[in-house]
Amino acid sequence: MQETIKFIHENKQRFVDELFELIRIPSISADSAYKNEVQKCAEKVSDFLKKAGAENVEICPTDGHPIVYGEKIIGKDLPTVLVYGHYDVQPADPIELWNKDPFEPYIEKTEIHPNGAIFGRGSADDKGQFFMHVAAFEAMNATNSLTCNVKFIIEGEEEVGSVHLEQFLKDNTEKLACDCILISDTSLYSMEQPTVTTGLRGLSYVEVEVEGPNRDLHSGLYGGAVPNPIHVLSRMIAQMFDEKGSIAIDGFYDNVEILSDEERAEMNKLKDDPEGFKASIGLNGVEGEEGYTTLERTSIRPTLDVNGIWGGYTGEGAKTVIPSKAYAKISMRLVPYQTPEEITEKFTQYFNKIAPDNVKVTVNPHHGGMPYVLPSNSPEFLAAKKAMEASFGKEVLPFRSGGSIPITALFEQILKAKCVLMGFGLSSDAIHSPNEHYGLDNFYKGIESIPLFFQYYSGK
Amino acid sequence: MQETIKFIHENKQRFVDELFELIRIPSISADSAYKNEVQKCAEKVSDFLKKAGAENVEICPTDGHPIVYGEKIIGKDLPTVLVYGHYDVQPADPIELWNKDPFEPYIEKTEIHPNGAIFGRGSADDKGQFFMHVAAFEAMNATNSLTCNVKFIIEGEEEVGSVHLEQFLKDNTEKLACDCILISDTSLYSMEQPTVTTGLRGLSYVEVEVEGPNRDLHSGLYGGAVPNPIHVLSRMIAQMFDEKGSIAIDGFYDNVEILSDEERAEMNKLKDDPEGFKASIGLNGVEGEEGYTTLERTSIRPTLDVNGIWGGYTGEGAKTVIPSKAYAKISMRLVPYQTPEEITEKFTQYFNKIAPDNVKVTVNPHHGGMPYVLPSNSPEFLAAKKAMEASFGKEVLPFRSGGSIPITALFEQILKAKCVLMGFGLSSDAIHSPNEHYGLDNFYKGIESIPLFFQYYSGK
Repeated sequence: MQETIKFIHENKQRFVDELFELIRIPSISADSAYKNEVQKCAEKVSDFLKKAGAENVEICPTDGHPIVYGEKIIGKDLPTVLVYGHYDVQPADPIELWNKDPFEPYIEKTEIHPNGAIFGRGSADDKGQFFMHVAAFEAMNATNSLTCNVKFIIEGEEEVGSVHLEQFLKDNTEKLACDCILISDTSLYSMEQPTVTTGLRGLSYVEVEVEGPNRDLHSGLYGGAVPNPIHVLSRMIAQMFDEKGSIAIDGFYDNVEILSDEERAEMNKLKDDPEGFKASIGLNGVEGEEGYTTLERTSIRPTLDVNGIWGGYTGEGAKTVIPSKAYAKISMRLVPYQTPEEITEKFTQYFNKIAPDNVKVTVNPHHGGMPYVLPSNSPEFLAAKKAMEASFGKEVLPFRSGGSIPITALFEQILKAKCVLMGFGLSSDAIHSPNEHYGLDNFYKGIESIPLFFQYYSGK
Repeated sequence: MQETIKFIHENKQRFVDELFELIRIPSISADSAYKNEVQKCAEKVSDFLKKAGAENVEICPTDGHPIVYGEKIIGKDLPTVLVYGHYDVQPADPIELWNKDPFEPYIEKTEIHPNGAIFGRGSADDKGQFFMHVAAFEAMNATNSLTCNVKFIIEGEEEVGSVHLEQFLKDNTEKLACDCILISDTSLYSMEQPTVTTGLRGLSYVEVEVEGPNRDLHSGLYGGAVPNPIHVLSRMIAQMFDEKGSIAIDGFYDNVEILSDEERAEMNKLKDDPEGFKASIGLNGVEGEEGYTTLERTSIRPTLDVNGIWGGYTGEGAKTVIPSKAYAKISMRLVPYQTPEEITEKFTQYFNKIAPDNVKVTVNPHHGGMPYVLPSNSPEFLAAKKAMEASFGKEVLPFRSGGSIPITALFEQILKAKCVLMGFGLSSDAIHSPNEHYGLDNFYKGIESIPLFFQYYSGK
């Protein structure tokens, strides 16, 4: 292991340079205009895997963006770790809020990253994180310290709901057979309080449309006498919540996991810093479901957020129009025992129920994912905890995240193995936002922790 | 007058061709990208005025888009009619809903225009309508039947609130001195029931912004614990109305003109066709302030409409973001005794009052205009009524429109003369909407009615 760590240290700068090459490719999966860039990025991932020593590397086509596969099988009796990551990224807009080109990475020091952070779209989510595994694998391979078989699947559709992954897993259960799935696509609670993510929320994502008049109308001639779809949609969004901040959709909480007082007390031990939290995002007050802390609201409770709204004239100047249609994109985060099918159905029923008779409404489901929990007494959790405690020199706690990686439940169901969410990001990384970045220390700590995970997991 | 009508008939096709030339220029005043096109359109208007026989034609610069002036003074003792119109047009978006290029005019028959209608942005509002005056003036001039002095001001900023007209009027009171202002920028009640518009609503137009967190956030990590500005804005829009469809802004109705039961009965004599109204815009139900008819809601009552809303991710696919900001454009139509200053102030106070403490809100006033009423016993109204009764062969009634031409009150105040709103459009013309059009019969009836107005107004 000493050799491996030495190799990593000697190749630090090259690993950063290679990550920069990945970030420079704008692999935005949500926007079909970037299809070729996504393909180019898959090819680059494939090249790096080969270079690191992976065998049978292939770019597997799907009906959408391709999945990159690679492996290194060293012994039939050894445990097999399947590393999952994604090389696609979120769109960069609003692009004008980035300090520099989102696809020209650079390093800059920040208050919480005194040794520098890598800025660029995908630096943290997930190029910087999955590439730690490629680097760690190269180091283990080069220094003959590999103690498990390794398989990689790095996909290109995570940001659009991993729409073709399920079929790929089902078609390749034998090839992908493994003992656990190792994923770095989550955050630490903080650098001072490292954590392994033991829970993720599920997701239901829908797009809604409200149609009033069948064409845009002049608001002077028609205003005050017809249903304005923006007013109707606004009212309907307001009706999504009750006066206590709970979601008003009928039956929304029916299947929600209820934690015991002890469990809630345990999770609230993580040092909360309400003032720091508010200051970090420029707020003078938080809000949410009554009776829960901020930590609970963002982890063990389901939520609903409008992620986008549009309708009517949104250009420069003034236009006096009543639009025919108004639209919104709405996502709901789910907790254990809720399913996306159930929640999408309940949303749709409620949305139709509260729609006034004189408009037409449509709900188009986008994608969904199941919530996920990893028991804190499982061998996978314990190996990750031990590995990180060794590299951080601190106690590592389990943590439930508010985010979603819908495929964790899929992996468990199809490959019959547990996912280990050993992520090294921070909540301040601004993933999905302008000026996304990933701490250099986080990147290196990740590369160093991974070989230790392999060691502890194999029991060597 | 026989000669004049003959001239008009002989030149019908040329007038349409010339109007097409005007429509082909995308003179969109709201969008600075079209600045040169607006200028080009002003030059074209100037050319047509000269060709029609106007003198002292000039393109008068303003701090925004220019105003075109021209005149024909034939006698000091004769009354002077100032013709006002605007050569700028609304933006064409949503452009994908037009059947053809909005700036390549064509003629097509429709159910209510069996002789054809001219399709194109500005065909009705207001290129087609102001050009009737150029054509009628040419006809009177060519046949020596002019009985009044004529002055033209055709401006290029009506669709953005005529921001520089007031200064222009104030700087040129002597040059623009007149006995009345003649404007064609309104609609007939119908071809079967011609009307002269005797009332217009005023306007207050604002843009609002709600800021929650100081940057876009990941809705999984932060959702449920912070104020989402889209939710807040939606709730605030919902709070603009009470459960009876009245506007909830404090004091909004304080100064509203209250019509007597007799006046309301008189105005409701105009044959209403609720089923036809609904069918024409694809609705199965109307809505609005309780206790008023559709006709009243769109004429004698003030209204509030959100004309545009945007925030968060509105592109293709799904993005799980909580945006930092959400925006809306909101206009209010005013009735006599309300003023834009009063209403903008009351809106701003209410918007700030209902904003939760944990967001920042901003209200940016765009432009406003006073409501307007022309008494139905004035010589201006009577001359217009007589002229149109002669050309339509039907009784012409007074009509209050729901639209706004904010400059009518300005003209009266600065030039001390009354405006006559002799418009020939129809509410089905789709002004401000895709597939705007103007009936050929409406265009010709307008050209024929104008010389009669001059004749009756001069008492010759």
